[in-house]
Amino acid sequence: MRKVTIYDTTLRDGAQAEEMNLTAQDKVRIAHKLDELGIHYIEAGWPGSNPTDATFFEQIKGHTFKNARLAAFGSTHLTRSTPEKDKNLAALLEAHTPVVTIFGKSWDMHATTALGVSLERNLELIHNSVTYLVPRVDEVIFDAEHFFDGYRHNPEYALKALKTALDAGAARLVLCDTNGGTLTASVAEAVKAVVAALPGAEIGIHAHNDSELAVANSLEAVRLGASQVQGTINGYGERCGNANLCSVIPNLELKMGMKTIGHENLKRLLATSHFVSETANLRPFMRQPFVGASAFAHKGGIHVSAILKDSTTYEHIHPESVGNAQRVLLSDQAGRSNILFKAKELGYELGKSDATVDTLLQELKLKESMGYEYSVADASFELMLQKALGLKKDYFSFRHFFVVDAKREEDPEPFTEATVIINVMGQVEHTAATGMGPVNALDRALRKGLERFYPKLSEIRLLDFKVRVLSGAVRDTGGTASFVRVLIETGDKHERWTTMGVSHNIIEASWQAVVDAIDYKLFRDDKRRAQGVE
Amino acid sequence: MRKVTIYDTTLRDGAQAEEMNLTAQDKVRIAHKLDELGIHYIEAGWPGSNPTDATFFEQIKGHTFKNARLAAFGSTHLTRSTPEKDKNLAALLEAHTPVVTIFGKSWDMHATTALGVSLERNLELIHNSVTYLVPRVDEVIFDAEHFFDGYRHNPEYALKALKTALDAGAARLVLCDTNGGTLTASVAEAVKAVVAALPGAEIGIHAHNDSELAVANSLEAVRLGASQVQGTINGYGERCGNANLCSVIPNLELKMGMKTIGHENLKRLLATSHFVSETANLRPFMRQPFVGASAFAHKGGIHVSAILKDSTTYEHIHPESVGNAQRVLLSDQAGRSNILFKAKELGYELGKSDATVDTLLQELKLKESMGYEYSVADASFELMLQKALGLKKDYFSFRHFFVVDAKREEDPEPFTEATVIINVMGQVEHTAATGMGPVNALDRALRKGLERFYPKLSEIRLLDFKVRVLSGAVRDTGGTASFVRVLIETGDKHERWTTMGVSHNIIEASWQAVVDAIDYKLFRDDKRRAQGVE
Repeated sequence: MRKVTIYDTTLRDGAQAEEMNLTAQDKVRIAHKLDELGIHYIEAGWPGSNPTDATFFEQIKGHTFKNARLAAFGSTHLTRSTPEKDKNLAALLEAHTPVVTIFGKSWDMHATTALGVSLERNLELIHNSVTYLVPRVDEVIFDAEHFFDGYRHNPEYALKALKTALDAGAARLVLCDTNGGTLTASVAEAVKAVVAALPGAEIGIHAHNDSELAVANSLEAVRLGASQVQGTINGYGERCGNANLCSVIPNLELKMGMKTIGHENLKRLLATSHFVSETANLRPFMRQPFVGASAFAHKGGIHVSAILKDSTTYEHIHPESVGNAQRVLLSDQAGRSNILFKAKELGYELGKSDATVDTLLQELKLKESMGYEYSVADASFELMLQKALGLKKDYFSFRHFFVVDAKREEDPEPFTEATVIINVMGQVEHTAATGMGPVNALDRALRKGLERFYPKLSEIRLLDFKVRVLSGAVRDTGGTASFVRVLIETGDKHERWTTMGVSHNIIEASWQAVVDAIDYKLFRDDKRRAQGVE
Repeated sequence: MRKVTIYDTTLRDGAQAEEMNLTAQDKVRIAHKLDELGIHYIEAGWPGSNPTDATFFEQIKGHTFKNARLAAFGSTHLTRSTPEKDKNLAALLEAHTPVVTIFGKSWDMHATTALGVSLERNLELIHNSVTYLVPRVDEVIFDAEHFFDGYRHNPEYALKALKTALDAGAARLVLCDTNGGTLTASVAEAVKAVVAALPGAEIGIHAHNDSELAVANSLEAVRLGASQVQGTINGYGERCGNANLCSVIPNLELKMGMKTIGHENLKRLLATSHFVSETANLRPFMRQPFVGASAFAHKGGIHVSAILKDSTTYEHIHPESVGNAQRVLLSDQAGRSNILFKAKELGYELGKSDATVDTLLQELKLKESMGYEYSVADASFELMLQKALGLKKDYFSFRHFFVVDAKREEDPEPFTEATVIINVMGQVEHTAATGMGPVNALDRALRKGLERFYPKLSEIRLLDFKVRVLSGAVRDTGGTASFVRVLIETGDKHERWTTMGVSHNIIEASWQAVVDAIDYKLFRDDKRRAQGVE
């Protein structure tokens, strides 16, 4: 079983994606998630090129990783400088990563045009930079920028650039299709030539997706001898992105019989894909292979009846092997079984012909047509289910809220204040609080009124807050009057839960989600108390 | 120059995509657009399988197409029936299309399991169905469903299924990777075997994208002898979709030297891609190769300075050849050259060593570290640029705003009211308005105060409103106190523009974006007036 190492560059090349904007703290969280997935190398940034990466490399010092080696990325030294005096190489060493990856030119035209140096001088830059780094870090990787274009125009020179890096001590030579324009057959030809010219050298592939061939080109390079694939989670990256590791890894593991992150870790693929898209706050791509919401979703009647007989008839792999699941898209029948399945999962036994199931199905369809999306808000679904079953306890009842946002010329931010009136255990509570914004103020005022009665509410923390404008409504009513969906993630020492609200008014939508979050906490505390686990 | 025909199945296989929902009228409009693009075959539906397709085939009768031949799609006849009595074959003929495409089983397991017939009987179904159709329509195409899986399990039988259709008179044999699970090297092996076994037969390829290899597999089949590619615009289709024709066509035309729709038609590719996504009301995929908004967008400083010297350094084709255009993005990774380029694009000539460039770069990096993202808000960038250059006109000045959201037990939604105080042309305006939410109310109150002075403001409409919670801040301050970025898209009869605001407080962030939107409108009106274009 051949081993292929996975080199993730989501935090460096992926961060060049148009809509991607990660903070240093986001990068730290993603790095740990990639490590959990079993990724072998994490290229985390270009130290010194921007403030985010500088902060990141400071923050990451002292963190330990189970599987991954951290890599800092940069270029060969400037032609008017020497390795010793080069700021870029110095910044790479200051990042204190076990691995340093530098790119150099292997396309003759790029050396002379983009860099403006002679072909000979370009080889010196490669030689000098690698030689300087090798004794100073654990592992030096050489990225041959534009290798395939270079090979097409001047194969001899492109190979010479690789040999220069190899002779200078680079542990690995990575063939980059920087413009993403190379066809798979051309990748094959060039990889064969490299393997023949540099027997025994460790080869990697770094493909871009401008021709929609990055995954195919990566697999083809591995088939012909490469032992490392560079890419990004979800294929994020500049222009059309990089080779999508969420497709590369399962193809290598499940179809080509290679050892990468292992079959057990592979089951975390979907969770990792979601984690990265959520952290970057990018909308997941439904049709994404392997991990997309539609990847194992069946709509056509013929397909559905066939997969019910034998799932391999229309599924190329078992969805569970990458953490995904089969979905049958909604029909009335699928709706009932979805509800039964979900209720059972939460511990509520409903009979198939139970009238509650129909009531719930109607309610669900109505709410979803308004923009509610219960698949992402389990806690709000459970509260709706309890209501339908007559099990929901009223911990408090709403009377009134009032929120003010006021700003004067001289204020940097508005002054925000909320007042809330609720009934709790027969008493009227009227409270007020300020906040960092209207939702924060409302949340604080509401909790003030409740904590005297339910002191455990002080345990909960709001972990995430998401707002999505529902595009269907925009066209009709104009932007600022469209429907919004608010999702709130809340946590205590036991667990995390997500609740939801939908309204024209963002305050009202947030209020619904906050109320559900508190109701859910109180219900779970009751349950734990009843089970004697507290 | 080899000719390869393009067979589009957006209206049939594409319509199986999870979010795709086309009316019969949508399908007619898309068919004409595909014809204009120079597509050779349009597979328009499965007559009789659903009411939309039935209506479509009624409506399309009598329409003429310049380039495309219309195809109706169906299956071989039922085993308990005969061709003469089979409802499916009858419906195909009633569609009155010049081309009929039928699929049959070529995977032995599928014949016996999914269809439940003997291997011999399956060949009879193929033979009988093709023989029946050939004298009744212009052209019969045979889709060998699951051909590659079939070839892997039982190559002899898979080839026998093809030969049966060929001998019965099928004009073309299409090799289908129905589950999308086949690797490119396996496609190559099977295509070679088909070409060797059936010399002279016209071969087509129909690939699905479940392994992210549909484009590569299509190109590989063509390289080895296939003369037709089946696919969909934007790769729409069941599960992960079909081979994306927006990538297949330019790869064949521009890189493999094949004749498909021709270089002139190719320039309509982007427009066709947008037309289909707009008609289907699906959000375009930014990173889509060739036609995506990000496909030729450059963010990194090094790339930008290189493309300014020579665009082939980081672009694999000329964007114009597919109707796309180069874009330079602004970000904290941007260098001076991004700013110079962007300023020039907007019509501001800045010298390379101009102090304003440094001021702007510092400001940009500071703002982006706070969460501003100017690459998606061109209008806010231009206002910042004008400020830095001392060119910004103050159309009004802010004094005060006050927003109330109040809700009582008995109200379905809160009551919302905003008051605004501004100075306009030396006068103090104090206005009030209600709204569907706090931002809507503020927007209305502000415009009330301004429209008396700037009546053209009544022309503008808010088109979209996006809220993003910046995840970096969530952990530090708790969900409801995190930073939010608001993007507003505004339009008038001339153009559309995007503005932005960032704050802890969603009201304040929205206010910033609304103020920029109005400032931008007033500046553009001035400019048009100065240029005498109004």
